Amino acid sequence: MLKKISIAIDAMGGDNSPDKILEGIKIFLNRNKSNNDFILNIFGKEEIIKEKLNQLNINSDAINIINSKTVVSDEETPMTAVKNSKNTSMWNCIHHQLEGKSDISLSAGNTGVLLVISRMILKMMNEVSKPALAGLWPNKNGMNVVLDLGANIECNDQNLIDFAELGSALFKSLFPKEKPKVGLLNVGSEEIKGTEMLKSASKKLKELSSDDNFIYNGYIEGNNIMSGDSNVIITDGFTGNIALKTAEGTAKFITSNLKKSLNKLSLLFSFFSLKRFKEKLDPRKYNGAIFLGLNGPVVKSHGGIDGMGFYHSIDLCYKIVKGNLMNEIKKNLKHSKSG
Amino acid sequence: MLKKISIAIDAMGGDNSPDKILEGIKIFLNRNKSNNDFILNIFGKEEIIKEKLNQLNINSDAINIINSKTVVSDEETPMTAVKNSKNTSMWNCIHHQLEGKSDISLSAGNTGVLLVISRMILKMMNEVSKPALAGLWPNKNGMNVVLDLGANIECNDQNLIDFAELGSALFKSLFPKEKPKVGLLNVGSEEIKGTEMLKSASKKLKELSSDDNFIYNGYIEGNNIMSGDSNVIITDGFTGNIALKTAEGTAKFITSNLKKSLNKLSLLFSFFSLKRFKEKLDPRKYNGAIFLGLNGPVVKSHGGIDGMGFYHSIDLCYKIVKGNLMNEIKKNLKHSKSG
Repeated sequence: MLKKISIAIDAMGGDNSPDKILEGIKIFLNRNKSNNDFILNIFGKEEIIKEKLNQLNINSDAINIINSKTVVSDEETPMTAVKNSKNTSMWNCIHHQLEGKSDISLSAGNTGVLLVISRMILKMMNEVSKPALAGLWPNKNGMNVVLDLGANIECNDQNLIDFAELGSALFKSLFPKEKPKVGLLNVGSEEIKGTEMLKSASKKLKELSSDDNFIYNGYIEGNNIMSGDSNVIITDGFTGNIALKTAEGTAKFITSNLKKSLNKLSLLFSFFSLKRFKEKLDPRKYNGAIFLGLNGPVVKSHGGIDGMGFYHSIDLCYKIVKGNLMNEIKKNLKHSKSG
Repeated sequence: MLKKISIAIDAMGGDNSPDKILEGIKIFLNRNKSNNDFILNIFGKEEIIKEKLNQLNINSDAINIINSKTVVSDEETPMTAVKNSKNTSMWNCIHHQLEGKSDISLSAGNTGVLLVISRMILKMMNEVSKPALAGLWPNKNGMNVVLDLGANIECNDQNLIDFAELGSALFKSLFPKEKPKVGLLNVGSEEIKGTEMLKSASKKLKELSSDDNFIYNGYIEGNNIMSGDSNVIITDGFTGNIALKTAEGTAKFITSNLKKSLNKLSLLFSFFSLKRFKEKLDPRKYNGAIFLGLNGPVVKSHGGIDGMGFYHSIDLCYKIVKGNLMNEIKKNLKHSKSG
């Protein structure tokens, strides 16, 4: 028998927990009825979880509840978390993963605390200079992996190289039929553009570019993130965070203006096509930021997402483990460190 | 008689010049028939310009052609520009402004060269640490001024303070009935977020916040640039450039997806409402980046824009001078440097 994909899920993080977490789990179980290759380890207050599972009519052998009496509070800061978060549902998730009982952890809780305790418990990979937070972002031809989205607000050239290795490994695990093509975010595409740090990173990425690892496409500008020419977009955490949020704000601004512009008659006639449009750009599909560079992946779901959104982050975890992310990372690192 | 608003226009910069420049001028003249308060000084090859003006049936006392035999080439870099661009149409524009014969200069030519020769000829204001490139960006309630959009890829706290002063002065000159509300772009809105440099800039901006100058709103995140809570968005040139271009790319991605999603029937029924939608988001309306911090403003039009787009940048120049930008800047600087 093959080893099952084992996912540790913090049922207590984010708004409306554990309700939306368990609704997400229900959708995942329904959509994977024919698969017998996974276990969902649910961490949280056992009584509440069991009651909720009953209400939702969830009854599956793939579920394993592990009681955790306490929960990381929303007020907790990364500074105080280490002291106060021990034995919370979030802590227990990561610890389960450290013990080799789960392959990946998923939480919709406090981001800062999740990053700190994941790093403390799982530890950084020896070959990586800084861990990074990666996200999915649609492009014209499919999907981008973008990192860093905010784990490191100041980065050096070696950090960016590591992000390229981690990001292209993530891309390969999620889209095994496609080639990772790395683009380095900059204010222009010419070689003379950008800071000295970016120029140095670009030079090294050019040397590392290969068919096995990733193809380096050079600098890309903000307006080309979604053009599809590159699919692994590398930047520091400050710029990445602002670019992602600016894109979110722009999308919201445009769709709300579109709604205001359409009259009732045109809304009626556009109903199905607008529904298709909305579905394609549904942010729930991109829910889940992946913490990379530790001895095991950790996924952060948006805290305000609904059950369908949480389903997408469980699905992301499943695909990451199935695509053998940690193996891809090790291959990339071996290639570049020996190169 | 009041002194006329005098605009120096480089007719030779950008694609399809001088055609689109002169088409833009024609629209401006048509829309300002009843105004007798401006002069357009057109710099370029006199013969070509005169012939084109005839073809377009433009005949106005508000036009003053100044012959410039040479043109800044697209291949010119900021390094070689100083030597090679002397007496080009662009150079002559800025020189006209230095001599006090124009209040503002406008070019759709090579950005790097325009920034370098503007700075060299007009010189920086004594009280300003670095000049910046500002742009207009729509928000929920109206319009934002955003800077720096790429003149300085590395900035310190004093540069950001100066950008706040320059940007709020620009905002006051363009929208005299509204109050400038400054937001500092960051990865979170809490005080502990961001680099030490941003924290220091934020502290000083808080001290400078006043009813006369600008109200400081604190940090804002990328998704709130268009929320309308702040209308003067301050950031370094690297982040600003990437944020602006990411927003452009996102807008393009969404509208092209929308087109694909709508079928012919719904397109037919949505025609007028989609037209309204498109008009509201028309990038030509925001054409023109304003170079601030020199002893006189210089406006850069997009190089690939059409006549209507160029019209909007002439209109921007007209409003900037009419709103007495340089006076507003001096008031702001006096307030903050003495404070």
